[in-house]
Amino acid sequence: MRALARAITLVERRDPSVRDLEAALRTQARAPGVAGFTGAPGTGKSTLVDAVVALLRQKQRSVAVLATDPNSPFTGGAILGDRIRMQRHALDTKVFIRSMGARGHLGGLSLATREAIRLLGAFGFDEVILETVGVGQSELEVAAVADTTVVVLTPNLGDSVQMIKAGILEIADVFVVNKADIDGHLRVIAELRAMLNLAPRQGWKAPIIATVATRQDGVEQLWEAVLAHRRHLETTGRAKELAEKRLRDETAEVAAELARQRARQALEEDPRLAERLLEDGTPYRTAEEILKRSANR
Amino acid sequence: MRALARAITLVERRDPSVRDLEAALRTQARAPGVAGFTGAPGTGKSTLVDAVVALLRQKQRSVAVLATDPNSPFTGGAILGDRIRMQRHALDTKVFIRSMGARGHLGGLSLATREAIRLLGAFGFDEVILETVGVGQSELEVAAVADTTVVVLTPNLGDSVQMIKAGILEIADVFVVNKADIDGHLRVIAELRAMLNLAPRQGWKAPIIATVATRQDGVEQLWEAVLAHRRHLETTGRAKELAEKRLRDETAEVAAELARQRARQALEEDPRLAERLLEDGTPYRTAEEILKRSANR
Repeated sequence: MRALARAITLVERRDPSVRDLEAALRTQARAPGVAGFTGAPGTGKSTLVDAVVALLRQKQRSVAVLATDPNSPFTGGAILGDRIRMQRHALDTKVFIRSMGARGHLGGLSLATREAIRLLGAFGFDEVILETVGVGQSELEVAAVADTTVVVLTPNLGDSVQMIKAGILEIADVFVVNKADIDGHLRVIAELRAMLNLAPRQGWKAPIIATVATRQDGVEQLWEAVLAHRRHLETTGRAKELAEKRLRDETAEVAAELARQRARQALEEDPRLAERLLEDGTPYRTAEEILKRSANR
Repeated sequence: MRALARAITLVERRDPSVRDLEAALRTQARAPGVAGFTGAPGTGKSTLVDAVVALLRQKQRSVAVLATDPNSPFTGGAILGDRIRMQRHALDTKVFIRSMGARGHLGGLSLATREAIRLLGAFGFDEVILETVGVGQSELEVAAVADTTVVVLTPNLGDSVQMIKAGILEIADVFVVNKADIDGHLRVIAELRAMLNLAPRQGWKAPIIATVATRQDGVEQLWEAVLAHRRHLETTGRAKELAEKRLRDETAEVAAELARQRARQALEEDPRLAERLLEDGTPYRTAEEILKRSANR
């Protein structure tokens, strides 16, 4: 567990040794199933994730939870306040919980998350659950990394209208209406169904699952829906396509990140280069020169 | 005007010839003043920008308006529907109006905007006004590029509360309460003032200007506030610092963008490289190899 935690810290920091880690783990890498949980604060998302973890442990599956917060700086593995309620898994070595943050790194969070998922696979974890903590872009980041995106709503937050705005319909593979013991849950489900019928997605119809996470109600059905979506991806060949697309995207993003770092470093270490840039105002030429140079190091 | 429009199209497409353009214009480049206008839809931002353009023309200043929409694809210079009301400047060669979009390009919009500003300077424009059309990240993009960021509010939209959330206080150099003929504008101004007093910014106190853009009321005062902020940047040396920081950032972003493009191209053109990536799952190593290779082309 400590080795894994350290490895993820290296990944978060984009330490150059990630490359060596990557090479060393290559042969043992197995792809875990990745489900992302997203939704507004107050929807009971963390409680739901906790309930899913409990279910997976009953089924003898090992599970890692990555709580990602794009608005936080690197957390260095610190466990968030609301992780306290997951302490019931603290002694279970088949449960790994970790917060990740990456403020200010364009694309940094999804890069670090992908690398962390590969590490978790190599360390033998069967399932990875991504939980967004922040708001804003985080839903899209999760959808870009997870195989199955679960969108969590509640009857009392008036989410259904907001949702359409944010384009959530396009990324949701499974809908959960949590807190289904509150008045109004049937209305939310009906609204959602109407909306999904208006804008049907090809091939896969996102199911709507009602849950009461605090009572473990509906959690089994939720996980069934996640597995059904996973089978759908497998049988249609979409799983392989997605995996390939992600590796290509990730390579392009790693290349961009490396180039960005090299440019900053070159401008810091070479005063003449920096001076000329400031005098001439030629970022394009300077960037090309830096890329040429750094290759020959 | 046509040469300028074409040059901006090249910049938007990140055409490799941007480098040559950059080099050719280098000697004639002058830095125009850049003011960014941001605010929620419905605040009358476009009408206000139109009023500022009219004022600047009275003052014999040439002016370019870049309407940026991070949620749109490249517009290829198409003029947005709401630009129609700016047709009164259509025959004025000292006014240049252009919509820019860059959906899906991380950092692409601010890169293209910076390059376009340099072009506008080389073509002799005195003032550039950036207007955000979209919502979301666009405010931050504008603040990263503009010398002076003007945040537009109205009495009727309940913006003042939303604002704090989005961290707008930190980026606003000038506040405008537009539609100041509507009930409630004094309350918005008072709330805003209270908020600014709670979180004072060092060195510069953002003034609050009341305007009725449709009647040209307060526009002169608004422009005075923009000029006062510009003088503040000059006298404190902050203007030079900002210009330098932006050129460094821009170089790093151009390097990242070039690397990203090269990685995608390499994976497309070299099936063996792509195959190994998919088999081994080693994006880090693959990215490094691609950067090494592309340098020796």
